[in-house]
Amino acid sequence: MGRNKFTDEQLAEMSPAEMRAIIRKGEWTEPDEMASIGYFKANLAVVPADWAFELMLFCKRNPISCYATEVTEAGATSPGWIAPGADLRTDLPRYRVFKDGEVIDEPTDVIKYWRDDLVSFLIGPLPNLLYMLQSANVRYCVLGAYNSTVSAVPAGRLHGNLAISCMIFKTNQDAVRGIQIASRYPDGHGAPHHFGLNDLETMGIKDYRKPDIIPLIGEKNLQHPDMVDHGYDLRPGEVAVWSGCGVTPQLAALASKVPFMITHKAAHLLITDTRCEEFSII
Amino acid sequence: MGRNKFTDEQLAEMSPAEMRAIIRKGEWTEPDEMASIGYFKANLAVVPADWAFELMLFCKRNPISCYATEVTEAGATSPGWIAPGADLRTDLPRYRVFKDGEVIDEPTDVIKYWRDDLVSFLIGPLPNLLYMLQSANVRYCVLGAYNSTVSAVPAGRLHGNLAISCMIFKTNQDAVRGIQIASRYPDGHGAPHHFGLNDLETMGIKDYRKPDIIPLIGEKNLQHPDMVDHGYDLRPGEVAVWSGCGVTPQLAALASKVPFMITHKAAHLLITDTRCEEFSII
Repeated sequence: MGRNKFTDEQLAEMSPAEMRAIIRKGEWTEPDEMASIGYFKANLAVVPADWAFELMLFCKRNPISCYATEVTEAGATSPGWIAPGADLRTDLPRYRVFKDGEVIDEPTDVIKYWRDDLVSFLIGPLPNLLYMLQSANVRYCVLGAYNSTVSAVPAGRLHGNLAISCMIFKTNQDAVRGIQIASRYPDGHGAPHHFGLNDLETMGIKDYRKPDIIPLIGEKNLQHPDMVDHGYDLRPGEVAVWSGCGVTPQLAALASKVPFMITHKAAHLLITDTRCEEFSII
Repeated sequence: MGRNKFTDEQLAEMSPAEMRAIIRKGEWTEPDEMASIGYFKANLAVVPADWAFELMLFCKRNPISCYATEVTEAGATSPGWIAPGADLRTDLPRYRVFKDGEVIDEPTDVIKYWRDDLVSFLIGPLPNLLYMLQSANVRYCVLGAYNSTVSAVPAGRLHGNLAISCMIFKTNQDAVRGIQIASRYPDGHGAPHHFGLNDLETMGIKDYRKPDIIPLIGEKNLQHPDMVDHGYDLRPGEVAVWSGCGVTPQLAALASKVPFMITHKAAHLLITDTRCEEFSII
């Protein structure tokens, strides 16, 4: 169930607890990054305890892609800090379940997959940064997210390539302001890592007009009004900026043939009770 | 061997590799925070692999006290990033060895204690921040480090109280500038957590004139020249500011009766090849 059930305004104004209750009842199974605007959203990655240290190390070593904001004790079904009332098994609109490096299911809850030895990682995705950019009236839009050919820094048995995302800023000044703001939010990927469209080979992007993971051009939510319906072509003075993407742990699950992992489905996020601004480190 | 072997100037100008070689040969066994000035120093905490996830979680949940800058794979004897040429078993001037929650040794190397399943945590201590404060000509001195009665956020089997440290800033403006600078360096404890001397009960400090861990008053190194020989009494306009202390994992080892842990001895640090400024996040 989805898009037409609520207006954009209704979604934006929903409290995190209300929105999670709606999702928990199965009444919203679409991307929810435009809901409860201003509240911190989180990607999810869940592994058995015997993979938890390696995933934590992987996140530590690849902070631009997957900075772990909160990590639970084994078996916990709720984050103790960023969303104490949430149930990690039911409160995301859609999940992905990996077995031996393959996606075996994309369910709307993971109750039947849950085990007592599971450790959950809550990882801040791009929409948190986009909200902060919007608050500061920075003019940007998001092209989408891509599979790169750049290796993540491995950790134990975990390895894989980085997922990355691309934004277009309207002017150089918007890009600089965007970097300043992003730098204050390590929980929202922190500062970007790459500029421009003239060095795509380094990242292994064959065609930046065809994002592999999430095509966002044309989505009006979480884009500056000036940049809606932008399309892929840069206009004079605009700057393309590449940043991390929280789908990276999923690529690691595939590449490393992790025996069992549960994640969010891209753009189907946990809505937490914390405000994005709470994560500013300065 | 120690203090009189080299002049302060010789120590300050020693390269990290030179200083580590001197320490490795057993020719320097004293605190080394004043050596290789400007280079990032690291506390050490080493646990068997089956405690590594919990220690990582403990660091994650108590970042003001013990922000882990680098974590090794099990068995690695060298950090791959911040000091690739270092040997963690020999290159700190003095270690502490814990067994079942007790200190059993304070050796100058840990070769005989080393095991293939050990995971090493490199944790940024206060001297890195002090260097940044000195660079910016902020006027401060350090009173010392204390055992507080404030619980760290536990992680699995790991629990204990926070170690904290106290600095005095000469003016409110120095204190504000100090907070701004500290906020840019999460690897150097980040922003402080407490002000003043009129709420010591909250932290469980019975007598702030008697630091439990490291008394620093009177040490001229790493203090602003205006504040050397300051003594414990605040002068008009000065501000006492409390921050995290990297001895916290050692308090957890004691309180949690960790079967086996190796750490640095307080103020006996690993000198890395990275510059303090490399860790600025903005």
